[in-house]
Amino acid sequence: MSENRPTILKIGGSVITDKNGELAARLSDINRLAQEIKNADIQDLIIIHGGGSFGHPLAKRYSINEGFKEESQKIGFAETHHVMTVLNGLFMDALIWNGLPAISIAPSSCILTKSGRIVSFEETTLKTVLKMDFIPVMYGDAVFDVDLGFTILSGDQLVSYIATRFNVKGIIIGVDVDGLYNADPKTEKKAKMFKRLTLKELKNLQEALGKSTACDVTGGMFGKISELLPAIECGIPVKIVNATKPNYIYKILKGEKVEGTLIKKE
Amino acid sequence: MSENRPTILKIGGSVITDKNGELAARLSDINRLAQEIKNADIQDLIIIHGGGSFGHPLAKRYSINEGFKEESQKIGFAETHHVMTVLNGLFMDALIWNGLPAISIAPSSCILTKSGRIVSFEETTLKTVLKMDFIPVMYGDAVFDVDLGFTILSGDQLVSYIATRFNVKGIIIGVDVDGLYNADPKTEKKAKMFKRLTLKELKNLQEALGKSTACDVTGGMFGKISELLPAIECGIPVKIVNATKPNYIYKILKGEKVEGTLIKKE
Repeated sequence: MSENRPTILKIGGSVITDKNGELAARLSDINRLAQEIKNADIQDLIIIHGGGSFGHPLAKRYSINEGFKEESQKIGFAETHHVMTVLNGLFMDALIWNGLPAISIAPSSCILTKSGRIVSFEETTLKTVLKMDFIPVMYGDAVFDVDLGFTILSGDQLVSYIATRFNVKGIIIGVDVDGLYNADPKTEKKAKMFKRLTLKELKNLQEALGKSTACDVTGGMFGKISELLPAIECGIPVKIVNATKPNYIYKILKGEKVEGTLIKKE
Repeated sequence: MSENRPTILKIGGSVITDKNGELAARLSDINRLAQEIKNADIQDLIIIHGGGSFGHPLAKRYSINEGFKEESQKIGFAETHHVMTVLNGLFMDALIWNGLPAISIAPSSCILTKSGRIVSFEETTLKTVLKMDFIPVMYGDAVFDVDLGFTILSGDQLVSYIATRFNVKGIIIGVDVDGLYNADPKTEKKAKMFKRLTLKELKNLQEALGKSTACDVTGGMFGKISELLPAIECGIPVKIVNATKPNYIYKILKGEKVEGTLIKKE
């Protein structure tokens, strides 16, 4: 029974799904990541994954993040939650068949938001799962909202909430680029990656760059990072790494040196 | 937004899976039931399904209902919960593709037991789902237990708990036999079905017959019915019907006359 500070491993939707498709899972990457997590053999891990081409297209089509406005959205909300459980199921399959005692915790079953922000989280299950040395797995989800009826809870908001609430040791953000850049590395050849950033440098950068306009209901890379500010302010280090590159997640979990962006309070 | 008393529809694992196989879903029955529920077009419904050949063989193999005794059970607990989410996913698929705004609520994410009995249920999500006229779908699950570490929560205990907690209008128990018999109708040709039973008659019958010895971690038919006693004592009527027979579930949801066993307090 563990009482140590856990580490959060966030796996972006762009790593485990093909964002150009719809309901297009990258099964070989999912299985590779499950093996890397198994091989790293670390205790006290919380896994949170994004929605990629499962949650996002449906959430966008039915404007789920704008809240409940008309009856026709209801089936869209149901579908969005359902496809997220399907993607989660594929990830769980890989984790369990690789021998990891992983337990999915459905955010919509224990979290309520208010105007898009988490206001209530029934955390008994998560605490119990960690205490018994299981690996809890959560995900971005369609959730109920006190003001809006329903909305989208991004995996990134969930990471930040749990990180501060459970005072985690560190956050690993696995994405499909090498780290945080001063522009979009997929379109800008001259984009420069930051190796280290302090909270102050990050805030200055955000002011200078403004928000990313990526077509993504949970925001682009800066949107993701700004969600993590409360955790960084609490002194929790964040490391952004490329989870599509073999063994990067394995190495970072083992505490080995990996290319990426490290963001620390000071 | 609804405020009416809901009806619980329990669908037994023997209806939606082949208990002689392992992980053997009866997809055509699942789809037929989803269509019947859609056609019945009723409000304020809570669906709860069993585990059948998904949850039971694994739960038995790893003695999950006996609680945590050794490390090797942990992967079994993870597998049991996972396969239940897979079966639930197949049911959700059918409900949603038939146009029903159904939302799965994972019992293990919001329920804790103590020596096998529910002691805490974070019911905000279920209340919200009902209030917004979605159809909540829950299931028998592998759950965490304050005393035992973990255990199995049967769909029947869940039905009874929610029925009394939410003061439901009635409980429909869909099984693979026509009702409650004085012996096992699958092996005893002379088994006689009860059309109506009062609480007193049911209790006398239980004393006379003793417990069913069906090889089923959640008990046989009398085990199921004895789980429902608290609900029956609260005056909630229970109707047992054969959900494998086409349109029986449709008819009972519509309030039409259907063969089966009706159990009422008086």
